[in-house]
Amino acid sequence: MRRNLFSGFVTSFALCSACVSPDSEARFAIPAQPEGLSPAIPDILAGSSPLEWRSLDPETTLYMDFPQGRVVIEMAPDFAPNHVANVKTLAREGYFRNGAVTRVQDNYVAQWAQAAEPPRPPRLGAVTLKAEFVRRRDPAISFDALPDPDTYAPEVGFSNGFPAGRDASEMWLAHCYGAVGVGRDNDPDSGGGTELYAIIGHSPRGLDRNITVLGRVVQGMEILSSLPRGPGAMGFFETPAGYTRYADIKVAADLPAGQRTDLEILRTDSATFATLVNARRWRKDDFYHNPPGRIGLCNITVPSRLKS
Amino acid sequence: MRRNLFSGFVTSFALCSACVSPDSEARFAIPAQPEGLSPAIPDILAGSSPLEWRSLDPETTLYMDFPQGRVVIEMAPDFAPNHVANVKTLAREGYFRNGAVTRVQDNYVAQWAQAAEPPRPPRLGAVTLKAEFVRRRDPAISFDALPDPDTYAPEVGFSNGFPAGRDASEMWLAHCYGAVGVGRDNDPDSGGGTELYAIIGHSPRGLDRNITVLGRVVQGMEILSSLPRGPGAMGFFETPAGYTRYADIKVAADLPAGQRTDLEILRTDSATFATLVNARRWRKDDFYHNPPGRIGLCNITVPSRLKS
Repeated sequence: MRRNLFSGFVTSFALCSACVSPDSEARFAIPAQPEGLSPAIPDILAGSSPLEWRSLDPETTLYMDFPQGRVVIEMAPDFAPNHVANVKTLAREGYFRNGAVTRVQDNYVAQWAQAAEPPRPPRLGAVTLKAEFVRRRDPAISFDALPDPDTYAPEVGFSNGFPAGRDASEMWLAHCYGAVGVGRDNDPDSGGGTELYAIIGHSPRGLDRNITVLGRVVQGMEILSSLPRGPGAMGFFETPAGYTRYADIKVAADLPAGQRTDLEILRTDSATFATLVNARRWRKDDFYHNPPGRIGLCNITVPSRLKS
Repeated sequence: MRRNLFSGFVTSFALCSACVSPDSEARFAIPAQPEGLSPAIPDILAGSSPLEWRSLDPETTLYMDFPQGRVVIEMAPDFAPNHVANVKTLAREGYFRNGAVTRVQDNYVAQWAQAAEPPRPPRLGAVTLKAEFVRRRDPAISFDALPDPDTYAPEVGFSNGFPAGRDASEMWLAHCYGAVGVGRDNDPDSGGGTELYAIIGHSPRGLDRNITVLGRVVQGMEILSSLPRGPGAMGFFETPAGYTRYADIKVAADLPAGQRTDLEILRTDSATFATLVNARRWRKDDFYHNPPGRIGLCNITVPSRLKS
C-alpha cells in the first residue's frame, strides 16, 4: 500500500514568440485541453528531435564545485551582459577560489561570497556595476510567451530557457526557483557579482525588477536548497564555522573537455516544449483527476539532459 | 561592503470577507499604493492589538519532534474534517511513533510515514477515507479574499490563516510552501493520513483540488526543507539508512502545558494583516525601488509568535 503519491516533474505550454499583448487581458488563448490522458514527460521527450535541444554555451556556463557535487549555472548575457562579463572576469582571476555559502535563509535564498572578511578585492573584475534589473524590450530577443495569467507581470514566458516577464517597453528575468541573482546593498548600482544568490524556496517574484538576475541553476539545485539554514538575521551565518565551502567557480570553457558537464536544454521555442507545457497545464492521468487548465511560469521546469 | 541584500519576510493584503467575485475579472480593486516608504514588518506588528491574534487550538495542532527541533502543524477541520479527526486518532493510538521521513524530493515535498515496511496497521484509525479535496463554498467559513490575480484559481485568500482558493461553488486549501497534505495512491479515496507530506519548494498549485490538504506547518519548516534529498525515483529513499527519524507526532492538547509550543497567529481578517499585506504588495523602502503593486497568495507569510 505504499504510495507513489504524485510524480514531481512539473512542466508545460503554448508558444507565441511573435504575439503582441499590450495588456494582461488581451493575451492569446490558452490551448485547448488535449484529448485522453496526459503523456508522461519522458514519453514526450522521447519523441523530440535532436534539433529541439541546444547545448549550453561553455563561455556563459559556470561550475561551482562543492564536495557533494557540481552546481551548473547558465548565465543570461541578453539580460545582464555587464554582470555576466564581470563574473567571468572574476572567475578567471581566481576571485571565487575557496569561497563559501555565507547565508541560507529558509524559503528564500542561498548566498555565496568570499569567506574572508573583509573580502580580498578583485584585481581585474569590478566590485560594483550599473544595475541590470530590466532591459529594453527588443523583438530580436526571443520570448516564448505563456498565455496563462501571472500575478506579477503583464506577460510571462521564456527567453532562451530563462523564465522572464515583460511589459510594453521592458523585459526582465523572473525570480523563479533556481534563479541566480546579484547581491547588493541598498544602492541599485552597488552589486557587481562578487556576491551571488540562488532562490531556494517559493519564487519571490516581488524581487523582479529590483535586483539583477544573471542566470539560473540548471543542475545541482538540491545541493544549495538542502544546506542548513543560517541561524542569524536573514539566514546569515554569524561565524565561518557555519559556512559551506566550495572549491571555486569556473567558466566551463576554461576546463578541459573531459572535466565539463555537457548538458543540453530543451529549446523553449520547440514544438516538444509546447506539447510538454500543455500536457502539464491540462494534466490528467491516473493520479491527477482535476486538471487546472493553467500553469504558472515558475511551475515549469525546462528539461535538461546529459549529452550522449 | 557586506550586503543586507533583501529581508526575507514576505507578507501583505486587502481584505474582503464578504465580497462577491463571480469570475476572475470582476474582482474588487487592489488598494492604492500607500504614501511614503513601506514600514518594516516588526514595526507593523508592534502596532497590532492583542485581539488581532489568535492562539493555536491545541486540539487541532500537531507536534512532530525531530532531534533537531519541533515541527508544529496547524490542522484545518473546516476543510478536511474527517482526515483531521483520523490523524488525531492515529496520533493518540501511537501510530506515528518512531516514524521516518521516507521521501524528500527537491523543490517539491518531504513525506513521512511509518518506517516499517509494510507498515503496522492502525488499531483505531482508518487507513483510507473519502477524499476531501474541496469543500462546498459556505459563507459561514471565513474567506479573506485577495484582489490580486492568481494563475490557478478564480479567487484566492485566507481562511482563518490557511491560504485557499475558491470558485462559485467550492473552496479548497492551496499548496503553498508549508502546506501539509495526505499521501495517497491513484484512487482519490486511497489516502487517510497514515502518510503525510509538506511542500518544501515552489508551490505546486497544480496539486490543488487533486489531494486532500489538511493543514500547514507554522513552525519548523526549515527542519523539513533542509533534509537531504532522496536519491531514488521521486525522492524516495531506497533503504531505511537514508530516513530521518522523528520520535512521534502528538496532538498538542495531549501534552502537559509546560511541553507545549504556545504560538499565536495574526488573524487574517485583522486590520494589521491588511496593512501588512498592502505594505508588501507596494513594498518600497531603502532596498526595494520598484514596487510590484501585486502580491501572490503563496508569497504571503502569516505572522506567528510565541505567546508572552
